[in-house]
Amino acid sequence: MKDVSLLSFQSFNHIYKMRLLKNYFTLIGLFTVFSVSAQHPIAYCTKSDIGFIKSKLGDNELIKKSFSDIKTSVDFWIGKDVDVPFPKDPAGGYTHEKHKDNYNLMFNSSMLYQLTGDAKYAELVKKIFIKYAALNPTLKNHPEAKSKFPGRIFHQALNDANWLVYAGLAYDGIHDYLTLAERKQIADGAFKPEVDFFSGELKDWFALIHNHAVWACAGVGIAGMATDNEQWVQMALYGAKKDGKSGFIANIDGLFSPEGFYTEGPYYTRYSILPFYLFAKSLEHYKPELKVFNRKNNVMQKSLINALQQTNLDGGFYCYNDALKDKTFITNELVEAVDIAREVFGEDKSLLPVVVQQNRVTLSKGGISLSEEVARNKNIPRYFPYKSIEFTDGANGDEGGVSILRSGSAEKLTSLIFKYTGHGLSHGHFDKLNINLYDEGNEIISDYGAARFVGIEQKFGGRYLPETKSYAAQSIAHNTIVADEKSHFNAVEDESQAHHSNKLFSTIGGNVQVVSALDTNAYADIKLHRTIYMLQLPTNPKPLTVDIFRALSATQHQYDLPFQYLGTLMSTSFPYKSFTTNQTTMGKKFGYQHLWKEAEGKYDNPLSQFTFLNNKTYYSISSLADDSTRFYLTRTGANDPNFNLRREPAYIIRKKGDNQTFLSVIEIHGGYNSVTETSTNAYSSVKKITLLRNDDEYSVAEIMLADKLLLLIQCNSNYKANEKHTLNINGKSVQFTGPYSVLFDGKAL
Amino acid sequence: MKDVSLLSFQSFNHIYKMRLLKNYFTLIGLFTVFSVSAQHPIAYCTKSDIGFIKSKLGDNELIKKSFSDIKTSVDFWIGKDVDVPFPKDPAGGYTHEKHKDNYNLMFNSSMLYQLTGDAKYAELVKKIFIKYAALNPTLKNHPEAKSKFPGRIFHQALNDANWLVYAGLAYDGIHDYLTLAERKQIADGAFKPEVDFFSGELKDWFALIHNHAVWACAGVGIAGMATDNEQWVQMALYGAKKDGKSGFIANIDGLFSPEGFYTEGPYYTRYSILPFYLFAKSLEHYKPELKVFNRKNNVMQKSLINALQQTNLDGGFYCYNDALKDKTFITNELVEAVDIAREVFGEDKSLLPVVVQQNRVTLSKGGISLSEEVARNKNIPRYFPYKSIEFTDGANGDEGGVSILRSGSAEKLTSLIFKYTGHGLSHGHFDKLNINLYDEGNEIISDYGAARFVGIEQKFGGRYLPETKSYAAQSIAHNTIVADEKSHFNAVEDESQAHHSNKLFSTIGGNVQVVSALDTNAYADIKLHRTIYMLQLPTNPKPLTVDIFRALSATQHQYDLPFQYLGTLMSTSFPYKSFTTNQTTMGKKFGYQHLWKEAEGKYDNPLSQFTFLNNKTYYSISSLADDSTRFYLTRTGANDPNFNLRREPAYIIRKKGDNQTFLSVIEIHGGYNSVTETSTNAYSSVKKITLLRNDDEYSVAEIMLADKLLLLIQCNSNYKANEKHTLNINGKSVQFTGPYSVLFDGKAL
Repeated sequence: MKDVSLLSFQSFNHIYKMRLLKNYFTLIGLFTVFSVSAQHPIAYCTKSDIGFIKSKLGDNELIKKSFSDIKTSVDFWIGKDVDVPFPKDPAGGYTHEKHKDNYNLMFNSSMLYQLTGDAKYAELVKKIFIKYAALNPTLKNHPEAKSKFPGRIFHQALNDANWLVYAGLAYDGIHDYLTLAERKQIADGAFKPEVDFFSGELKDWFALIHNHAVWACAGVGIAGMATDNEQWVQMALYGAKKDGKSGFIANIDGLFSPEGFYTEGPYYTRYSILPFYLFAKSLEHYKPELKVFNRKNNVMQKSLINALQQTNLDGGFYCYNDALKDKTFITNELVEAVDIAREVFGEDKSLLPVVVQQNRVTLSKGGISLSEEVARNKNIPRYFPYKSIEFTDGANGDEGGVSILRSGSAEKLTSLIFKYTGHGLSHGHFDKLNINLYDEGNEIISDYGAARFVGIEQKFGGRYLPETKSYAAQSIAHNTIVADEKSHFNAVEDESQAHHSNKLFSTIGGNVQVVSALDTNAYADIKLHRTIYMLQLPTNPKPLTVDIFRALSATQHQYDLPFQYLGTLMSTSFPYKSFTTNQTTMGKKFGYQHLWKEAEGKYDNPLSQFTFLNNKTYYSISSLADDSTRFYLTRTGANDPNFNLRREPAYIIRKKGDNQTFLSVIEIHGGYNSVTETSTNAYSSVKKITLLRNDDEYSVAEIMLADKLLLLIQCNSNYKANEKHTLNINGKSVQFTGPYSVLFDGKAL
Repeated sequence: MKDVSLLSFQSFNHIYKMRLLKNYFTLIGLFTVFSVSAQHPIAYCTKSDIGFIKSKLGDNELIKKSFSDIKTSVDFWIGKDVDVPFPKDPAGGYTHEKHKDNYNLMFNSSMLYQLTGDAKYAELVKKIFIKYAALNPTLKNHPEAKSKFPGRIFHQALNDANWLVYAGLAYDGIHDYLTLAERKQIADGAFKPEVDFFSGELKDWFALIHNHAVWACAGVGIAGMATDNEQWVQMALYGAKKDGKSGFIANIDGLFSPEGFYTEGPYYTRYSILPFYLFAKSLEHYKPELKVFNRKNNVMQKSLINALQQTNLDGGFYCYNDALKDKTFITNELVEAVDIAREVFGEDKSLLPVVVQQNRVTLSKGGISLSEEVARNKNIPRYFPYKSIEFTDGANGDEGGVSILRSGSAEKLTSLIFKYTGHGLSHGHFDKLNINLYDEGNEIISDYGAARFVGIEQKFGGRYLPETKSYAAQSIAHNTIVADEKSHFNAVEDESQAHHSNKLFSTIGGNVQVVSALDTNAYADIKLHRTIYMLQLPTNPKPLTVDIFRALSATQHQYDLPFQYLGTLMSTSFPYKSFTTNQTTMGKKFGYQHLWKEAEGKYDNPLSQFTFLNNKTYYSISSLADDSTRFYLTRTGANDPNFNLRREPAYIIRKKGDNQTFLSVIEIHGGYNSVTETSTNAYSSVKKITLLRNDDEYSVAEIMLADKLLLLIQCNSNYKANEKHTLNINGKSVQFTGPYSVLFDGKAL
């Protein structure tokens, strides 16, 4: 971190001198207010950008629409008195929504002033600012503040940081319109109380390596640029103590893995990417020598592309960890980031399907370029170019990671997410070695995400609901082993945050995709070893997933493996008893208290099959059972007095023992056509599953698919790529190289 | 019916003579086989039609696509041996689906033969027919037959009738390709056993006035035309006894109300319309003098248009009575009917949005015309021209009916269905005075429809599930009053079938829409009187619904009014106790046994409010409560061991007393934007509800909406349109004419 501070000090000096020359004539007048006044605008765009954008606003439909949408929304307020209410309500309530509307209105009106030169837009912004300049110095903590990090304008500091970012950008745009006295009034009244609050009372929060701190730094830094307060910019970059241990640069270095994986997961990548991009873009103008976009090998660029790789066909972000299902890449954050990426990193055709779905661009150089490319390209694919991909987690890429296995293309895409990351900070869930399956744009084996109705006052003021912690974050809400009805790490965040799983080996892309990962920390005396195979068989248009999940312990445990399926149960191969007139919960804590036990099934056959229908496609889970096995059909909704949880089903396989292996085959098969009222391939093709060997050295699984044998051999201790293995299987000698071998009908796939 | 027989006898003679002349040269050779051989094809189209269609097949994209889809599906089978298996499986199983595929293949291949002249298509059809000619004489009742009316090729006779219709059309198309011996072989082997079965063993079924009988008549009639067997045509038209008491003509007269309302409801209109249209179209060629399409003032045309009026924005048929939610007007039945309607009744621009969504046409004159109109019209609206509309039920239009109140247009459409029909034959539900609400294409206050997975073998062979009768058909599954936990008519179909409700008065269209209806039969000693107001207020972009539901009895009862809402509960104004760890059912029978009691609320205020969110719009139900009132939040799924029911919530208001009135205001308000994370108008605007008067003469309701008063006055005994009334309301004299008056903020709407 020393290097960073040093560099910044040098560049600060350099910039300072440059500005001194440029602003010679205005300098003297301003010097009494601040040390130096830069040319404005300097943050969201520069004077020359504005000239360029202005010249292009009528060039194509997308930019015309984008401009006119913004103009319509702002023009509504021209000549009206905009309320700046005393803060009172939580999210969803009037004062919260009004302040949110206000900062967007200020930003948009400021952009219109710059692009049209019409003083009415600047005047609108100024009048709102004057009200904030009067209000902000009077504020104490918000009356609805419930978190450790309270806000003043809003119930939480995070929203105040949002305000600061947009208010800063808005101010920068009308800077030259304001008199010196007005500038001082706004800087001292509107901005300074917020900046002082962040860097003073909330200094621990401001110093976090966390998306909240990124917002706070972006806010303080942009406000600094806008008000010519270099000290604020320095605090934003290097922390309140300016030692580089916190601040924006430390967050770039600390929050992303080398591939740009953001540890909180894709839903929060979406959220945090906005302050990263907005502040970095501003720094490109204000301190270009910092080259923040190139930091850590363009990690911010990777972060955006890799966040897009972590979306479903509908643009929805994969919702592991805290995540809401209706968030897609058409949100403001991604529109802004994609447009900035275009401006900073140049043309990238993979962005165009995203821009088409966003159906708007920002009024920026990047937005102009993308609107032109959309107008020019006649054959933009419908979908982002999804592919199989893996990311490491942790700042140095050594804290586990996530693999996304894919098969099929366009609307036929199948994606399986295998998660062996670190915890993911305060939004992480206790879901080591979890899997999720998406197919043809639908969630099939799902992650609950978070229990929250953001922006809806009736639902706990739009905040995270208690059921997020009591259910959604617990292990049983996922698709991974839960031992003894206790969540991983006993659901203690600090404990989980200290650990991560590890990948043992993987091959992605091609007909045989395999990822094997190990967790040794979730339970004190249990090792969890899961290997996922996604196989493209010549006999099936859809990929077959084989899941070998080994729980290894010296002592006896109860192991639950839930499949949070979405769909309608079609059939089970095992008999079960339904609880038809009286229902009780599956347990008392660790999320089990939120599950109604709808049915309980008994072992009657080593092959247990479960088939469900989701959006006209059949899915079957065929599993190897033993006489310790029980099956549970459950549904969320117990202990949910406020009706906060969706009622979703799960199929839970329970086994007992010391070492236990869950071997499951997940098939995507056939379909149902409601127009012709016909079904095709409605049944699983799995006829038999045998675990021929399963020990410290090897697992060997034999699966009969219709009349053909699928043989999977995996190494459980030696994962070297060039290691040669010879095994005796069913009396025959089988040789292979590397950590696994897959044979179908006697041949390699 | 005498007239009909007479007419038919005359026309038979007439036709006979005409044919005699036309077919003079072929007559002698054929006379030994059948009495007379018409020119073929004569059913689905004529030789001259074929020439016309042929000349147009390349004219536009829609017809090209439609032709090529059919050609691709048939070409796959050219040169292959098509299996005609011995019947074994229920719906969804192999033999069922194969025979279904076969009749479609035969029909399509026969069309291709006619349109291309390529003998391979005729040969394919012939080979399949030869197999059926061998199979059909050997068949006894299907091994999976479970209904009173078993089939032979299929598990139920209905499907055999489907086969007969398409096989008949297919045969007609290749008639001239066949040798005399082949014709006899097929007529005697493939067709005769089916016709004899229908008119013999199944003569009671064949004689029904019911959609099954329509299919059977169409099958027998078309087979008759195709095989030159006039006797079969006569049976089809006038019943096996040819007395006109049953048969196709009696079904036209008996199944439709004068406006073309089909008593089983829109879902079954969709299904029955196909044999009506196919047979009628064939009769247009074969017996044009019958003018079947003009019968009962073009009732078949009205039936189609009115079925389309009974669809949701997504084309889904309103699902009252037995109905599956995924059936829309893109199904084959409606493609065929729409195309035939175009051919028979001429151009109708309202059909074009439907054709665009169907995205295919039949290879017919109507199909050609529609494809040309779609190609020519650049501004086809996205939706069918929905409007407020009312239908009577019963052959003479005197058995109640249904009103559809609408407000808004295009994707903003709101539709409320108020049902006061007769029972609806075997697919009717016990839901007198039920309402359903759709808004912006979503079901808001819903009808369960039927419990069935048609075409899915795992689910009871695709048949109606037992839960259709035990839950979906019961009164509590609807949105109407249930007294003493017993369904209307004690859920006895014959009892319900003998009665209907009656409309008292109505006004549709405009800012004030009102429908009032009375049922005096559902319960022996209770009158049910419901009046629905759909009001377009100047203060609200969306309509406001007021529901005054009076239960009148001399004795004490428990009355339940359920609202089967779809969405997420946001808030209730009343306190409730949740059953968080143990759930029991709401009752033991009449559908109550399928409801889990999730929560029970108590009266604490005369105004009880319930708000939920559906697809980003808020909905509130505000009701007048008294101290007898209890509130229940329930969910389907109890006593459902096979997981056949969807888990859907309901809000049930329970009151006790002799006379009781449920006064509810249903508001559509505000919205939630997940991109901006903001809510607008998330709360109900109803501040107070007062029932100022409620007796045999008048009900007067006063509703405070924000700061404005809405006053509704309705007559409860005198419904004359020109009757003048004077009432004292709150000390003021109010005068109005007709059965109701609505004042908002002191003024008429």
